[in-house]
Amino acid sequence: MEIERIQVGALNSRAIIYNGILYMSGTVADDKLLPMKTQTEQILAKIDAVLAQAGTDKSRILSATVYLADISKKDEMNEAWKEWLAGDRPPARAAVEVTLTPNTLVEIMICAAI
Amino acid sequence: MEIERIQVGALNSRAIIYNGILYMSGTVADDKLLPMKTQTEQILAKIDAVLAQAGTDKSRILSATVYLADISKKDEMNEAWKEWLAGDRPPARAAVEVTLTPNTLVEIMICAAI
Amino acid sequence: MEIERIQVGALNSRAIIYNGILYMSGTVADDKLLPMKTQTEQILAKIDAVLAQAGTDKSRILSATVYLADISKKDEMNEAWKEWLAGDRPPARAAVEVTLTPNTLVEIMICAAI
Repeated sequence: MEIERIQVGALNSRAIIYNGILYMSGTVADDKLLPMKTQTEQILAKIDAVLAQAGTDKSRILSATVYLADISKKDEMNEAWKEWLAGDRPPARAAVEVTLTPNTLVEIMICAAI
Repeated sequence: MEIERIQVGALNSRAIIYNGILYMSGTVADDKLLPMKTQTEQILAKIDAVLAQAGTDKSRILSATVYLADISKKDEMNEAWKEWLAGDRPPARAAVEVTLTPNTLVEIMICAAI
Repeated sequence: MEIERIQVGALNSRAIIYNGILYMSGTVADDKLLPMKTQTEQILAKIDAVLAQAGTDKSRILSATVYLADISKKDEMNEAWKEWLAGDRPPARAAVEVTLTPNTLVEIMICAAI
């Protein structure tokens, strides 16, 4: 079976599609000067765009790993997450604190059904 | 193809089932005052319960990510893990130290075949 | 459907194959005294060997999570990663800093299409 790729870079592809599942790279905000909530909003908008490109949407996300630079700001991330879900039933998820590249407050990696 | 969900919450579903695979949210112990080994035992019991609800069991786990709050206590987690496997052949696994919410010593995220 | 396993250990299997997908355990270098780039090279060689055993190869990796002990050395890991790709189109990927067991500088967990 063929592997499809979206936005192929030198180090990673933005997303890989195989057998009806989309595997997305960790997504970060473009503007690293934003606080946690707005960085999360930027990420979720970018995820929406890639999902749309693959013909799917956030209601079909299967699993998400949320990497936070500061777990004490988890509630701020969750505010953006909840507004974004907008009543859609949520995926499986884990959220943990790791160290990210400087000024990156949050990075989200998902897989979704097409 | 339809996506099934187990225990749908506001932020995440306990588990998502799609195309024969169950994706479970990161699971933590209910009693955060317990030491590493017993927190792990609580988590594994909760994982067993969700797997049973989906009609599968621990022998069909494909992959597990174990997030430890203190990697120097990895052996304590592994004791509980080994007793729980009870001779079942184990999944693919990674175990790393991250920062979790206060008093959470371990969090485990798995996917399993139905 | 049957689950196949490669190198079954007491705590984890090196890899699990199910429904055309291989789930590999987190892979670390054998020689922990090596610097970041050469630890990464050792890991990627080990991943190649397991993929070959399953009848697939690095061009069919779907997703990779790279756990670094020091994110300031991400570029050194990326050098080894880029040389290894050798023009193959890359998978989805995230790279974050966590705490690993002593002297382990990098650990990589992948899933791949068979």
